[in-house]
Amino acid sequence: MNRNHLIEKIKKRRSFLCVGLDSDPAKIPAFLHEYSDPVFEFNKRIIDATLPYAVAYKPNIAFYESSGSKGWISLEKTMQYLQQLPEKVFTIADAKRGDIGNSAAHYARAFFDHLGFDAVTVSPYMGQDSIAPFLNYEDKWTIILALTSNQGSEDFQVLQPQLPTLLDKLGMKSCGYWKKLYELVIDKALSWQKSENVMFVVGATQSEMLATIRDAAPDSFLLVPGVGAQGGDLKNVAEKLLNKDCGLLVNASRSIIFASHKEDFADAAAVEAKKITTQMDQLLKNIF
Amino acid sequence: MNRNHLIEKIKKRRSFLCVGLDSDPAKIPAFLHEYSDPVFEFNKRIIDATLPYAVAYKPNIAFYESSGSKGWISLEKTMQYLQQLPEKVFTIADAKRGDIGNSAAHYARAFFDHLGFDAVTVSPYMGQDSIAPFLNYEDKWTIILALTSNQGSEDFQVLQPQLPTLLDKLGMKSCGYWKKLYELVIDKALSWQKSENVMFVVGATQSEMLATIRDAAPDSFLLVPGVGAQGGDLKNVAEKLLNKDCGLLVNASRSIIFASHKEDFADAAAVEAKKITTQMDQLLKNIF
Repeated sequence: MNRNHLIEKIKKRRSFLCVGLDSDPAKIPAFLHEYSDPVFEFNKRIIDATLPYAVAYKPNIAFYESSGSKGWISLEKTMQYLQQLPEKVFTIADAKRGDIGNSAAHYARAFFDHLGFDAVTVSPYMGQDSIAPFLNYEDKWTIILALTSNQGSEDFQVLQPQLPTLLDKLGMKSCGYWKKLYELVIDKALSWQKSENVMFVVGATQSEMLATIRDAAPDSFLLVPGVGAQGGDLKNVAEKLLNKDCGLLVNASRSIIFASHKEDFADAAAVEAKKITTQMDQLLKNIF
Repeated sequence: MNRNHLIEKIKKRRSFLCVGLDSDPAKIPAFLHEYSDPVFEFNKRIIDATLPYAVAYKPNIAFYESSGSKGWISLEKTMQYLQQLPEKVFTIADAKRGDIGNSAAHYARAFFDHLGFDAVTVSPYMGQDSIAPFLNYEDKWTIILALTSNQGSEDFQVLQPQLPTLLDKLGMKSCGYWKKLYELVIDKALSWQKSENVMFVVGATQSEMLATIRDAAPDSFLLVPGVGAQGGDLKNVAEKLLNKDCGLLVNASRSIIFASHKEDFADAAAVEAKKITTQMDQLLKNIF
């Protein structure tokens, strides 16, 4: 799905909600275990129930991979189901992959060619040549981890690197604003070839740093997890990050898909998704 | 496999060779495509041929995942095969995963519980809580990316971060040696709980920086890719990185498994593996 189609979808649906399919086999309602593929059965019903509200779906690959090839079959069936819907949705593989060029090309093949996702999340640690194979896909999106929602984001992402050349030049005496690692990740990624295919992951819980991210990437779409179960605030996120095209996909996983653990889980998911999109409709009134 | 067993295995075999099973379905010999699972058939023959020389095997998950659930089935069969060998080998899932706690726990389950690997490679970008779920496994190893062998390692891994508190304290005037990001990754990882289960990935191509890594992690085992097809030099790696327990696993993938693309591929792989281990035997004479 290209940028214009995504923006049109957001305008039409008046929603920028992404439903996270973190479909942990141990957490789905017990009665589904009577089916031959309980996880796929769960996903299908969640998708059907939330389709009037969501613009995107994001399976978190970890929850499939923990069941091995069986989990991968549930994932393949889920993607086939998402792709045959009468109305197209934006699909994100939350995979956080990152490896050297040849291996990265195989991961890109897995998620873009084999499974048919529109987008995949990747880790920037290994640099440009670990991400280029994803960027080379036309009308596909590479969503780079910038500032994540977890506590561990403080370990490395907010460090303030200084290039040795700059250090030398300044004789160690200059001051001013030093960019943090996540800002350098954004700057560099936007300088790479095919950077028009880049989005960034920004955690909703990073309240104070959200504005600096919109400054660093004024036109980019941002994927924002952490609203809902992780405690991020949707209004704050929207105020800091909405741009003229919306420029946002806000993900909620557990608060929607596990709103109920009983037979009514799909209805309960729809109620939660509707709640969020009612708020999104209001927030979008500022831009279109 | 615990540390002592790994060291014993290296001593007995007089080798620290890890064979990388980067078994790209498009690159394995054509005649194998007559078999129901060509990739597994390829791996089995490579393993049988190189077993007298290798102490470890490292499937690169990307090359399996690009075939989806079918690739995962080849991976599962390969791991079953490795686990039933009369003589135990050390097994590494080269997965480079990295996600927040709950998802990381599912990835750990995939590679340690479901597939039964001894070790898995992970990316440090998301910090401590993205790695802790792996470290919690007794007698399992978490191999953290530090300084990788690819060109993109220059983008972020060698930046020299400065903590704001340190900056403030020093009034910007102090000098001295500023650690690079990969050194901070090593320092932090060794300060985490269960750090006795940590190894680090260090690219053999990073000739100049190898010594600083052994200084930063004197006792840790290091997984070193980049020897062979990527151009790293084994003698240089050994001189800079061997410690009293060996402390090294040097990986070669393509140069061994694709030494021939014909029916003699397994014999050719054995010849290449033997060449490397003959050199390793000499290098080990300095320590035991």
